[in-house]
Amino acid sequence: MSIPSDKALVPFVSVDNMMRLVNHVGIPEMLRGLTAYIEEDFRRWELFDKTPRVASHSEVGVIELMPTSDGEAYGFKYVNGHPKNTSEGLQTVTAFGLLADVYTGYPVLLTEMTILTALRTAATSAMAAKLLAPKGATTMAMIGNGAQSEFQCMAMQAILGIETVKLYDIDPKATSKCAANLAGSGLNVVTCTSPEAAIEGAQILTTCTADKQYATVLSDNMVGEGVHINAIGGDCPGKTELAAGILARSDVFVEFPPQTRIEGEIQQMEEDFAVTELWQVLTGDKQGRSSEKQITLFDSVGFAIEDFSALRFIRDTIKGTDFYFDLDMLADPDDPRDLFGMVGRAKETTSI
Amino acid sequence: MSIPSDKALVPFVSVDNMMRLVNHVGIPEMLRGLTAYIEEDFRRWELFDKTPRVASHSEVGVIELMPTSDGEAYGFKYVNGHPKNTSEGLQTVTAFGLLADVYTGYPVLLTEMTILTALRTAATSAMAAKLLAPKGATTMAMIGNGAQSEFQCMAMQAILGIETVKLYDIDPKATSKCAANLAGSGLNVVTCTSPEAAIEGAQILTTCTADKQYATVLSDNMVGEGVHINAIGGDCPGKTELAAGILARSDVFVEFPPQTRIEGEIQQMEEDFAVTELWQVLTGDKQGRSSEKQITLFDSVGFAIEDFSALRFIRDTIKGTDFYFDLDMLADPDDPRDLFGMVGRAKETTSI
Repeated sequence: MSIPSDKALVPFVSVDNMMRLVNHVGIPEMLRGLTAYIEEDFRRWELFDKTPRVASHSEVGVIELMPTSDGEAYGFKYVNGHPKNTSEGLQTVTAFGLLADVYTGYPVLLTEMTILTALRTAATSAMAAKLLAPKGATTMAMIGNGAQSEFQCMAMQAILGIETVKLYDIDPKATSKCAANLAGSGLNVVTCTSPEAAIEGAQILTTCTADKQYATVLSDNMVGEGVHINAIGGDCPGKTELAAGILARSDVFVEFPPQTRIEGEIQQMEEDFAVTELWQVLTGDKQGRSSEKQITLFDSVGFAIEDFSALRFIRDTIKGTDFYFDLDMLADPDDPRDLFGMVGRAKETTSI
Repeated sequence: MSIPSDKALVPFVSVDNMMRLVNHVGIPEMLRGLTAYIEEDFRRWELFDKTPRVASHSEVGVIELMPTSDGEAYGFKYVNGHPKNTSEGLQTVTAFGLLADVYTGYPVLLTEMTILTALRTAATSAMAAKLLAPKGATTMAMIGNGAQSEFQCMAMQAILGIETVKLYDIDPKATSKCAANLAGSGLNVVTCTSPEAAIEGAQILTTCTADKQYATVLSDNMVGEGVHINAIGGDCPGKTELAAGILARSDVFVEFPPQTRIEGEIQQMEEDFAVTELWQVLTGDKQGRSSEKQITLFDSVGFAIEDFSALRFIRDTIKGTDFYFDLDMLADPDDPRDLFGMVGRAKETTSI
């Protein structure tokens, strides 16, 4: 076997190493770190090359590439969405991502992103809630207790200091799973048998359900004044969770308006429905929560810049650790013009 | 370390394994195999989802994603182009690619594509020449003796039966390198000190030079009647190799017209300059070479479908071999809703 040069090697974080890294750093610390990186990138939002996602649709799902760049680094995520996969024992969503150096075009990190996406989505929610939720919020209703739910609860605990989570899912087994996973987190976990019970006394309402339809997880009369709604599950065309009446009564905050108008809760509203871009609240250009009675709503769909931040965070966090190994992914002949000769010389090396 | 399920594993072909595979199969056989796969995909051209490349430009280069799908498989290539890299000891172009199953959205192959791109480009040239070059062609002029040159020569030998190659490069060292690499190929190799000398007696003229400018590697009076021109190096905006007068006298064949009009030799011509799509010659809808005196010109820029064919070829060729290893790239919890629990359980496994 011939030995590739350093330049040909791309650090790779496998699923196993990502789990080791998360367990080594600890989920709360991972979430705090990710939130800090995402905040940093949202503050310099205008600098990014914001290409729309590149989607390849089929009858059963979609495969998307989500690229972006800040001029120094370039990142993209590969992610699929196949709702029918669950019934076949497969993941609905799997993802991996890559970071490259804009100056050389050489990749510098390849990593699993299924776990990382769950973490960055929760970190983004917590970042938004920090700006929008009522001061001194202690309690969150978590409606929908699937794969994203525990991460959401722990992010609100780590970044906002939430003490109590009230869980509800249409499937009680999902609620039991979520509650069991959160045992030992330090959160006061209350399992509920109706969405109304979960909402009672909560200052933050998080919705994260899976059905691909125009659902009404929250109806208009369930939402009282002064709360912050963190709407995660309305995230593709034809998939929403909130009654339109709630949107009309709320101040709505979004990531990237052109994408959210197609994929988010606001796909139900007119094209000119007023929204505030979250990054402008971070920079101070726009106001976040302005009164106690106001209903704030983060219409979250997930944007490429959050993945970029997550890739940067992983690149910086794995330095000097053994939570990755190098992949021999880039051909790098000594003489750039002699690719053919490199292949030939490998033959000689191999035959020894 | 926890053991990932089969579904979480993606076969990966490293640079080292690609070189082992190429040397095991043999370059001529690889080129014949690739040509057959590319031909098969060109014949069903209309079936493909032909998304344009997604490019991220900077002052020093470009990073591109090239996705396509035939409805059953989805493929994309990551490729950079940084002309200044060579002077810094790096490759101008590096590439890797991924193939996924459209039905599940799960990746099924990750592979280096720097070497593979060189092979598929040569195979595409040979496929075009088979349709367009004069019958009984024995001699090719190879102008530009860089990283692509040996692959071009060997493809024309393997697929067309070319016996003699006449090499010319502005840098004599490049010509020596190419000639040395082709020793033992069975080709009669003639090194030349001028492009005119290289062209003399050749039925196929291949141009593949590297300068990013409007160059005139072939001037109008250098090209006689009846030849086939295989123009590889005019492949991005602002980079051409042929005098416009040659294009005006030739019948021009292209891969995907919207892309070639921006990137190919025909960027010099009017927007409605007549071209023939190569795939239509393969299906018999359009005529290839129609007379002995005709000048045919393949204005090659490289298209995503060729990479897709190459990915399919590698996927099929590595089956049952040890020219790959599995990457643990996709998180695959037993219960799809329990991603959090999977991470937690990994902690227990690790601590044993």
